[in-house]
Amino acid sequence: MERLALVVAYDGTHYAGFQRQGKGEDTIQVRLEAALTAVAGVPVPVRAAGRTDAGVHALGQVVDCPWPARVPAERVPPAVNRHLPPDVAVLAAKPVPPGFHARYTAVSKRYRYVIWRAPGPSPFWRRYAWHTGWKLDVAAMAEAAQRLVGRHDFRAFSAAGRPVRSAVRHVFTCEVRELGPLLFVIVEADGFLYRMVRRIVGTLVEVGRGFLAPGDIDAALASGEKSRAGPTAPPHGLFLEWVRYPAGEGPELPPPCGFFLDSMAFMP
Amino acid sequence: MERLALVVAYDGTHYAGFQRQGKGEDTIQVRLEAALTAVAGVPVPVRAAGRTDAGVHALGQVVDCPWPARVPAERVPPAVNRHLPPDVAVLAAKPVPPGFHARYTAVSKRYRYVIWRAPGPSPFWRRYAWHTGWKLDVAAMAEAAQRLVGRHDFRAFSAAGRPVRSAVRHVFTCEVRELGPLLFVIVEADGFLYRMVRRIVGTLVEVGRGFLAPGDIDAALASGEKSRAGPTAPPHGLFLEWVRYPAGEGPELPPPCGFFLDSMAFMP
Repeated sequence: MERLALVVAYDGTHYAGFQRQGKGEDTIQVRLEAALTAVAGVPVPVRAAGRTDAGVHALGQVVDCPWPARVPAERVPPAVNRHLPPDVAVLAAKPVPPGFHARYTAVSKRYRYVIWRAPGPSPFWRRYAWHTGWKLDVAAMAEAAQRLVGRHDFRAFSAAGRPVRSAVRHVFTCEVRELGPLLFVIVEADGFLYRMVRRIVGTLVEVGRGFLAPGDIDAALASGEKSRAGPTAPPHGLFLEWVRYPAGEGPELPPPCGFFLDSMAFMP
Repeated sequence: MERLALVVAYDGTHYAGFQRQGKGEDTIQVRLEAALTAVAGVPVPVRAAGRTDAGVHALGQVVDCPWPARVPAERVPPAVNRHLPPDVAVLAAKPVPPGFHARYTAVSKRYRYVIWRAPGPSPFWRRYAWHTGWKLDVAAMAEAAQRLVGRHDFRAFSAAGRPVRSAVRHVFTCEVRELGPLLFVIVEADGFLYRMVRRIVGTLVEVGRGFLAPGDIDAALASGEKSRAGPTAPPHGLFLEWVRYPAGEGPELPPPCGFFLDSMAFMP
């Protein structure tokens, strides 16, 4: 049977995360599988590149699934979207080889964390950004972020949860960008530990507040002690932005990713 | 008693418009007056620059109100925001002279209408943009928009509703901007007829679809016949962006103007 890779966007506000929980929780996986099954006429299980937590959003999540091929790939997004709630959408679908695995074939994933740092709350960003009233030293945060780049044991930046064989991950990009009252933390890596991005963001905010120094990052990485990193940032500021695959093996990065960078040019 | 002008942002999705309706409807005015009254300890009525319809949003609505001055202006936004729901926020407060009127002192108001024109739906823009699946000729829309600029009788572009003495308004700006899958229609004028922006947008979209020619705009303006303009675009794509006052007489344009819309552009 053919396999498809789907690029999926969702507003995670009202969901108990990506993963099916088997306890009646409303999750993205439950919704996606129901919609795919409705179109295919047979049960369609999906596997995701990143198992986002409750409240976390996705601009370009990738899932793969078997596909009985009666509906051609290019017709799948509109057909499936008719069966999805308005806060979940399939952006693209592409046939992939039988060995493709949304998670294990991926070369890297990129997350973006959004911080709203105006003194007052935002009616529009409230679902999509962490509102902090603190003064943040952005230069110190950027320096701290830079120290996370590279191949390190990130166990200090994970939350207790799923056991893993190794906590070594390669972070390709970790940067802090200012955009008016918004602050973006962008992290791209070959893999992530449980809640790693949110703990990185929580730690960078502690650096921004002056409670940790950029050098403390090195100490946290070297010691592996969770108590040396900061708290876990709340889920609603986090977006899974894209998943990268070896050339030709998976879906293209979804168009909105490049589009975002272009749109930067408009900003003062 | 002192008077204050407040700059207010709101997500209009769940409200029956700005204006108090007296029938138990949940409106922005009801929420604002309740919050101001809670802080002031006496009833505080507000007057808005623009009475936005149900579902319409505001980035920089301006209202004025009497203020007993026990809480100084700069402390009013945080104090009032504690009594407001998260989808309404006071961004700024400024003392104004006794003769100030949020609506009549205004020199101009600027609205922005957002169209999402990707083939598929957007989980993030669904509350803030009109999703049209149509191919739109943006150059023709821009030409048509230009023909609306100037001092004209806009009765053809109003909806039946409140009676007005004169339908003559001065449109200072009417432009169409492309930003990836988004299309913005920006209209600034010294005043607006009932649903005028939404009828302008509905008409421009008819031009974009090829059902009207840019020259038909002139004919609609000259004849004053409503049947010569297009339909009314849905409310949820419309934002009251700012209200301009004579120098020194009202609040500054709020910094986040348009910012949410530009910065949200990375979301599919």
